[in-house]
Amino acid sequence: MKDFNIVVIGGGPAGVIGAITAKKANKDKSVCLIRKDAISVIPCGIPYIFNSLNSVEENIMPDGGLDANGIEKIIAEATSIDRNEKTVSTATGEKIRYEKLIIAAGSDPFVPPIPGADKGNVFTIQKNFEYLKSMRPALIDSKDIVIIGGGFIGVEFAEELAKLKKHNITIVEMLPNLLGTAFDSDFCTLAEDKLKEMGVNISTGSKVTEILGDSKVTAVKLDNGKELRSDAVILSAGSKANTKLAEDAGLELGRSKGIWVDEHLQTSDPDIFAAGDCAEKRCFFTRKHIPVMLASTATAEARIAGSNLYKLQVIRENKGTIAIFSTWVNGLAMGSASMTESSARKQNFDIVVGNSNAVDHHPGKLPGTSKVKIRLVFSKYSGILLGGQVAGGVSAGEMINIIGLAIQKRVSFAELETLQMATQPWLTAAPTIYPIVTAAQDASSKMR
Amino acid sequence: MKDFNIVVIGGGPAGVIGAITAKKANKDKSVCLIRKDAISVIPCGIPYIFNSLNSVEENIMPDGGLDANGIEKIIAEATSIDRNEKTVSTATGEKIRYEKLIIAAGSDPFVPPIPGADKGNVFTIQKNFEYLKSMRPALIDSKDIVIIGGGFIGVEFAEELAKLKKHNITIVEMLPNLLGTAFDSDFCTLAEDKLKEMGVNISTGSKVTEILGDSKVTAVKLDNGKELRSDAVILSAGSKANTKLAEDAGLELGRSKGIWVDEHLQTSDPDIFAAGDCAEKRCFFTRKHIPVMLASTATAEARIAGSNLYKLQVIRENKGTIAIFSTWVNGLAMGSASMTESSARKQNFDIVVGNSNAVDHHPGKLPGTSKVKIRLVFSKYSGILLGGQVAGGVSAGEMINIIGLAIQKRVSFAELETLQMATQPWLTAAPTIYPIVTAAQDASSKMR
Repeated sequence: MKDFNIVVIGGGPAGVIGAITAKKANKDKSVCLIRKDAISVIPCGIPYIFNSLNSVEENIMPDGGLDANGIEKIIAEATSIDRNEKTVSTATGEKIRYEKLIIAAGSDPFVPPIPGADKGNVFTIQKNFEYLKSMRPALIDSKDIVIIGGGFIGVEFAEELAKLKKHNITIVEMLPNLLGTAFDSDFCTLAEDKLKEMGVNISTGSKVTEILGDSKVTAVKLDNGKELRSDAVILSAGSKANTKLAEDAGLELGRSKGIWVDEHLQTSDPDIFAAGDCAEKRCFFTRKHIPVMLASTATAEARIAGSNLYKLQVIRENKGTIAIFSTWVNGLAMGSASMTESSARKQNFDIVVGNSNAVDHHPGKLPGTSKVKIRLVFSKYSGILLGGQVAGGVSAGEMINIIGLAIQKRVSFAELETLQMATQPWLTAAPTIYPIVTAAQDASSKMR
Repeated sequence: MKDFNIVVIGGGPAGVIGAITAKKANKDKSVCLIRKDAISVIPCGIPYIFNSLNSVEENIMPDGGLDANGIEKIIAEATSIDRNEKTVSTATGEKIRYEKLIIAAGSDPFVPPIPGADKGNVFTIQKNFEYLKSMRPALIDSKDIVIIGGGFIGVEFAEELAKLKKHNITIVEMLPNLLGTAFDSDFCTLAEDKLKEMGVNISTGSKVTEILGDSKVTAVKLDNGKELRSDAVILSAGSKANTKLAEDAGLELGRSKGIWVDEHLQTSDPDIFAAGDCAEKRCFFTRKHIPVMLASTATAEARIAGSNLYKLQVIRENKGTIAIFSTWVNGLAMGSASMTESSARKQNFDIVVGNSNAVDHHPGKLPGTSKVKIRLVFSKYSGILLGGQVAGGVSAGEMINIIGLAIQKRVSFAELETLQMATQPWLTAAPTIYPIVTAAQDASSKMR
């Protein structure tokens, strides 16, 4: 039987970062990482294998970090955990003993209950090298592609495939807008317009009721009766937490069906931690259970879990998840953190909203200038920032992280109004109209 | 005699933002802004009039904000303030009565005491439309240009002029590195290399002792005896606060010779506020007086001053200045906030330094990927962030603002280690190596 101080199950970002952090925090302990696949892919890079990276091989997650830190890899499927023995068993019959265990088992694509979803050329987005190797040519060689689900993964697939200029692509989304859970509708429209410019068809407010064809898909049927010809379908309708191992081992699940964890990612067994998509998530502000599955959240959790296995030393300051993410659509960067205006109102928060429009160079006549649009949502009485959205050029990708830090530090509109920030003609808006500041001022003026 | 509730002296960023903020905070009050020049230029855009903007006219600060807010402009030079009468007199003999006054008189270029600095074709960087109109062709038509002073203005002028590919340009700097007051030397070297790639000559650790020529410059003499042929000289050796009006009116000056102001930009006269380059600045951490003259600091101050004229309502949260700024050198964005490793050590701070290297896309094989280098300086005992430096692609311009907010909110290494941030292949590093987080982890590992 193999014997390690620390065992990590899962080779995704949470597993890798959990293992490396655990080793750095406990230099004298042995660490091993168990994962099913010999080769790991970079989850966020998957949409870009068709054109921008031009192969699945260019999207491989390097093992250098594991190797450099002396973390042993075991390529095998973990099939059970024995909490009395403190062992993990694998499909090859091996047993691995642990003192402390991190479960970073990730998530699997959610397959919506649509008749015909099991037909040929119906793909889910799997973080699996071999699967992607076979999916890539099948999609490239298709003509009519229907993408079911207009969240950021569906949008990023559509954008990347559209760059090949050889497909007829349609996104079908139940909500009134693409990206509608993360952005207010005027922001969603900006992204939709960018996709339309590329020739992508968008069918929002509609549902696929059946996937048609014999063994292979030939069309999809919508709830309005219309049929869309289709020789390939991409299902991007969300993911579900991989909790089987944990459940079988008698660990508690949370309300959202993720593995129950406390503030420091400790499960109901004090020697077992869970991090990433498989662990339950809570909203930063409401503490309600929300199904957020993002690599950035996963790695933040893994850093906390990895540091706290033997002693709770890194006290969690950034409570819950702020569900912060960004995406890139045909030259438009979009970022969102925590609440939108519409999601805040839906939850009955008493809010004041600040808006601003600016450019990302100054003067705006400099070459390469993009427009920037920002919305900040503040609690009216408490004054603190509840959420933000940005749309703009490349730099908007880091602007959402300024907003994200401000949310995590519970910054008020008055603090943002008087923020000191670096500005430079080629890099930012002018200091007179720096849009995070002017959005805060807009909100402030409505509070007077 | 003209009569206004609020009078602002100065047409630069602090004056404009001070006036607009004052009006927004006091909608029933009349506001006027007195400035000498009919046309205002955008200070940060001045280096770019030679090639990128291709004219001085493209770098004019629009008056739209003043006009839209109903702020009256008086184009005249303010020559004195009578605090008993509460009036401002102008060079044309006009008197303007005020209830509340904001002095935003800015700064003038510092002319170092070098013999010959008064010769023809020796230019300072003046925020003056007519001056720039005459300087532009004179510099373009020169052959050998010497820039005295390698701070960010000297560097930006060199970079922009080098794009014209027709000059022999040399920067002469006393310190061992260009940008040496804002960056550690390994960061400075990155910028120096970028300038050298463009053919700019760099003479650091050397001083100009004389500017030679008859009426017009023909060469400069260095302290090592060498002479550099030169038919134009740019003096970019810093600025000095414009305090004459304030001094003559009996207002107190601070230790750094700027106008003394309290935390809310109130001068020693409670009805007079000062903001921007003319007002004294203090270090965020030490409260020592430091000569920081940046449009971003100026506008933050103007927002506080403008809000607080009649009642102290916006309590200053971001104490002192963090001297945050960014620059752009031939495709390299550089940002700095508060202390560097060397400046912190010089002031005897007990520090731990975290470093990281990453790329700004992921996987790094995506087209358009730039390297990113980050340094964070933490107080060893207190754990809080004292300063940061970034070098990278365009997005580094906003990354320094994440660091800047973290400094202003006194964030600890433990908080940054577990930061939740948005990551996206085209916009940021991977979540596993997001460089602000990994730099904090590097520091943290040295504290254990």
